[in-house]
Amino acid sequence: MRKADALQKIAARLRIHSLRMTSQAGSGHPTTCLSMAELAACLFFSEMRYNFRDPEDWGNDEFVLSKGHAAPILWAAYAEAGIIPEAELMDLRKISSRLEGHPTPRMNWVKAATGSLGQGLSVGVGLALAQRLGRSPGRTFVLLGDGECAEGSVWEAANAAVHFGLKNLVAVVDINRLGQSEATMHGHDIAAYARKFKAFGWAVHRVNGHDIAAILATFETIRKAGGPAVILARTLKGKGVSFLEDRNGWHGKPLQEKDLQKALQEIGPAPSIDAAKLVRPPRKARRPRWNKASNFERTAYTEKTATRLAYGIALQSLGRVNGWVVALDGDVKNSTYADRFFDSFPERSFQSFIAEQNMVGMGMGMSAKGFIPFVATFAAFLSRAHDQVRMAAYSFANLKLCGSHVGVSIGEDGPSQMGLEDLAIFRPIPGCVVLYPSDAFSAEACVEAAARHRGLVYIRTTRPATPLFYSREDTFPIGGSKVLRRGKGDAVTVIAAGITVFETLKAWEELKKERIGLRIIDAYSIQPLDKKTITREVAETGGRAVVVEDHFSAGGLGEAVAAALAGSARIIHLCVRELPRSGKPAELLDTYGISASHIVRAAKELIEHS
Amino acid sequence: MRKADALQKIAARLRIHSLRMTSQAGSGHPTTCLSMAELAACLFFSEMRYNFRDPEDWGNDEFVLSKGHAAPILWAAYAEAGIIPEAELMDLRKISSRLEGHPTPRMNWVKAATGSLGQGLSVGVGLALAQRLGRSPGRTFVLLGDGECAEGSVWEAANAAVHFGLKNLVAVVDINRLGQSEATMHGHDIAAYARKFKAFGWAVHRVNGHDIAAILATFETIRKAGGPAVILARTLKGKGVSFLEDRNGWHGKPLQEKDLQKALQEIGPAPSIDAAKLVRPPRKARRPRWNKASNFERTAYTEKTATRLAYGIALQSLGRVNGWVVALDGDVKNSTYADRFFDSFPERSFQSFIAEQNMVGMGMGMSAKGFIPFVATFAAFLSRAHDQVRMAAYSFANLKLCGSHVGVSIGEDGPSQMGLEDLAIFRPIPGCVVLYPSDAFSAEACVEAAARHRGLVYIRTTRPATPLFYSREDTFPIGGSKVLRRGKGDAVTVIAAGITVFETLKAWEELKKERIGLRIIDAYSIQPLDKKTITREVAETGGRAVVVEDHFSAGGLGEAVAAALAGSARIIHLCVRELPRSGKPAELLDTYGISASHIVRAAKELIEHS
Repeated sequence: MRKADALQKIAARLRIHSLRMTSQAGSGHPTTCLSMAELAACLFFSEMRYNFRDPEDWGNDEFVLSKGHAAPILWAAYAEAGIIPEAELMDLRKISSRLEGHPTPRMNWVKAATGSLGQGLSVGVGLALAQRLGRSPGRTFVLLGDGECAEGSVWEAANAAVHFGLKNLVAVVDINRLGQSEATMHGHDIAAYARKFKAFGWAVHRVNGHDIAAILATFETIRKAGGPAVILARTLKGKGVSFLEDRNGWHGKPLQEKDLQKALQEIGPAPSIDAAKLVRPPRKARRPRWNKASNFERTAYTEKTATRLAYGIALQSLGRVNGWVVALDGDVKNSTYADRFFDSFPERSFQSFIAEQNMVGMGMGMSAKGFIPFVATFAAFLSRAHDQVRMAAYSFANLKLCGSHVGVSIGEDGPSQMGLEDLAIFRPIPGCVVLYPSDAFSAEACVEAAARHRGLVYIRTTRPATPLFYSREDTFPIGGSKVLRRGKGDAVTVIAAGITVFETLKAWEELKKERIGLRIIDAYSIQPLDKKTITREVAETGGRAVVVEDHFSAGGLGEAVAAALAGSARIIHLCVRELPRSGKPAELLDTYGISASHIVRAAKELIEHS
Repeated sequence: MRKADALQKIAARLRIHSLRMTSQAGSGHPTTCLSMAELAACLFFSEMRYNFRDPEDWGNDEFVLSKGHAAPILWAAYAEAGIIPEAELMDLRKISSRLEGHPTPRMNWVKAATGSLGQGLSVGVGLALAQRLGRSPGRTFVLLGDGECAEGSVWEAANAAVHFGLKNLVAVVDINRLGQSEATMHGHDIAAYARKFKAFGWAVHRVNGHDIAAILATFETIRKAGGPAVILARTLKGKGVSFLEDRNGWHGKPLQEKDLQKALQEIGPAPSIDAAKLVRPPRKARRPRWNKASNFERTAYTEKTATRLAYGIALQSLGRVNGWVVALDGDVKNSTYADRFFDSFPERSFQSFIAEQNMVGMGMGMSAKGFIPFVATFAAFLSRAHDQVRMAAYSFANLKLCGSHVGVSIGEDGPSQMGLEDLAIFRPIPGCVVLYPSDAFSAEACVEAAARHRGLVYIRTTRPATPLFYSREDTFPIGGSKVLRRGKGDAVTVIAAGITVFETLKAWEELKKERIGLRIIDAYSIQPLDKKTITREVAETGGRAVVVEDHFSAGGLGEAVAAALAGSARIIHLCVRELPRSGKPAELLDTYGISASHIVRAAKELIEHS
């Protein structure tokens, strides 16, 4: 079988590259690459179809290396495919190189950053959904490690793949028995993996991961039968080098020069073969030409409305003018009001059930194909997907996340349901936009701003209905703020956002009676913060500032303002400083010190002590 | 069968309570309670053994209500068992009440807060492990909802239960078909759940969840055969009230008065029965009397040592003097150096494999029984368990978390492995202690401080070896700091921690040549911050401060200092402000602006502009 011979040669070349690259870099995971050399050869030079000149070709098969620490062999495969020059491989892990220690889209064939384990299959589900939605003939292949199958997120993704009936999704598990610090839970008990995937509804195929003919035959079977299918490949870590093969203690260790030479000698000289010729081109396909507007018809609200409801209505309106917008829900769509979109656009709506990690991972995958996923759940439960959010940032994903039910203002459901750390999740991410509307009009504007912006955006919405304050015509640019009250001789500036804007307005009324002027800023753009306006207004009120937010003390608006104003203002920061409990919204706002009366007191304190 | 009759009466009473309580509160999840009334009756008044006078009785069976939104029926069961007065039930969700909307240990029979779904089974695994380790005859029962079985964390826990062979663990899944916003993925396809649990190695039992005789028989079978066993109970949401039963749209909705009366009429008058008499007392058992010291023999380091290694060595030393200390690892123990403890105390070491959510959840469970779990992984991967950390805070857990490999100083492995948002995870938690040692001596002291403190503690460790600076005798109290350099006429105070302490010392040398004095503070206690010392020292250096940290800009040391000093200092904050890439540690520190040369520049800038 001449094809198998050719692929065996490529596998040898991939092994040689992987060993050399990591030794040159002085770090990396060569043995993890060696176990998957045959699998990679078969995937990239036989089974997958792609246009090696264009990673955006709509007909391409997609590939996700979920076990991201095997990055060297991925880069090696791209070199063999003619996508990058072979000499570049020696730049692995250099600060100037796109060939990082774990894959990121700085190398443009990488659709999502990996390296935090157990996330790739969710990304793959998203890519496969996107391919189906966009009528691409391409399929998606995800290569997982065995160790990462301990991550629950893998099983969330396994569920979703079957639920969505993804015939175009193929997973390959490189079962090399060894984790980082010891053997994996199941070692080489392939049947244990088979039982699980089968129970989750997958077509399961077992294969010797070093037997190219067997691998090819399995791929052929799957090509005919369709997915979601998984290949459980029994492999040896360090395969091909006697002193590495199946040995514990070699994880993440490059070979020193002497060992490297011994290893290369065992593998033999690099076989001569033009691997790029074996790459199978994709079927012709055209990227859909759907509308891509972000300026939708705004709603003429006439009464108190929750910002979460306005989010849902705006998303529905956006859906009408933008065919790339999709919505994902974690079985709370009747609370986040994403159900508005679900009802109008069922084909672009994806129920992720109570599995937030996979929900965000799918969003990452869909965004990599050009979709604009709006992913909503309770803000508190986005903490469940924090690692996926982190990786979405490193993936440069065009993802929009909405967290509803923020702060103590949700009331009786209690602390487990209160988003009190969500700003501290999103603000640290460089480049992440964080918007926090206070009324329905501003909420709709924030949805539009999110759609318009390329990148990660977080929108924070509130459970209770809030009064209308703005109008349909008001704009809410990213990085802006609104000065809501301004008078000559104002004594203190209060910086608020969301629900506390209304508490501040009440405090303004209260203090007005005592002829004390409050300047009020609605800092709806939590990040980037409108530093310029805030600095100016606070300076005009004698350097006296109160920040009031329905969030814990660290990582939110208060610290953002403190950092922005450092040295130029006296600040009182009102926020939630205890572990809260169940109660009525108004009671809780008061108990935890963020209601109008506390704002009044803080303003007076600043005035008295200056 | 008289027992079944009695339990049926109790089930009716639990239903009546649940309906009344939620109507009185005006919010809550009555239909979720109704589906599990028979299950609760059988658990609390037949199968479980507990001393209703003492939630700490070492012989007690433990119970975790993983579907925390069914809290009303849990409170109702406690009332029926005589643990709380029946009248108190009407206080549900009041701000003054321990009967919160979702269970928290403010009610002292609750061992871990629930309400973020899918976490209870991990807590149960931890409780069952603790019972086994402490030779308690008690078993652990976890009641899950069907919807939450979509959470990957459930399957992480399912894996762990079998891996650890927990004969004393029983899970009950209340399969009532309906989620919050629609039917669950599997609806009433009980076989789908059976396949999954079976594949994960559990003994699976199917039962009609409203048939008390069948439930009792199943419990009996399990009692003889041992666990981990799961009861898949087919139930109807809203069971017992015709207009609620199996109907979508009733999730989380209390009944209005008229509907309530109709419902109560259907159920009939509350049967008279003294349920407390049915409670089975536990077998006699005594809490172990292991050593519980925290002052261990410190190591006499003589050369550069990574703080992560010192963490491992200290944990090992602590293990010798404290029998309650246990260690949990996510297959990175040779990187966090938890392997030191694992090697010395295998019976108190728990390999969680690559499943961080379950790892933290198990820690919660073990801490609830009095153990002191030290849970370590890469800081970046603690983001995977952020929701569990959040719930650990609401559980008032005595849990110690260690995150290694923080910041860009890890080098070539790249951004996915860099802990750059970990401070922003832990700082927002009210009461959470955050320690960040710079050298091996201070790292050991931080482990001791963590062991001594009752509550959540996070320790941040560094990958590269750092010079020794302190001594074995130095103490590092929580809330303290160290002034490392102080001279008359110092121009600027630099506040650093961890790796940046050493960059600051280099900057000090550099500036000394130019006769510019730097005052240096090692702010090892990131939270609580030593506000007093920092304020004083900064004031002494003309209100000029530089904060330098290997963390993203938001939520870390810089914002903590900015908040503490607001109004009294000019601050330059050096931190990681871009999405970083792979590279050598020194290169990265320099590229992202946190090396000695940047500190020198910042100090000069502050001096020039003042």
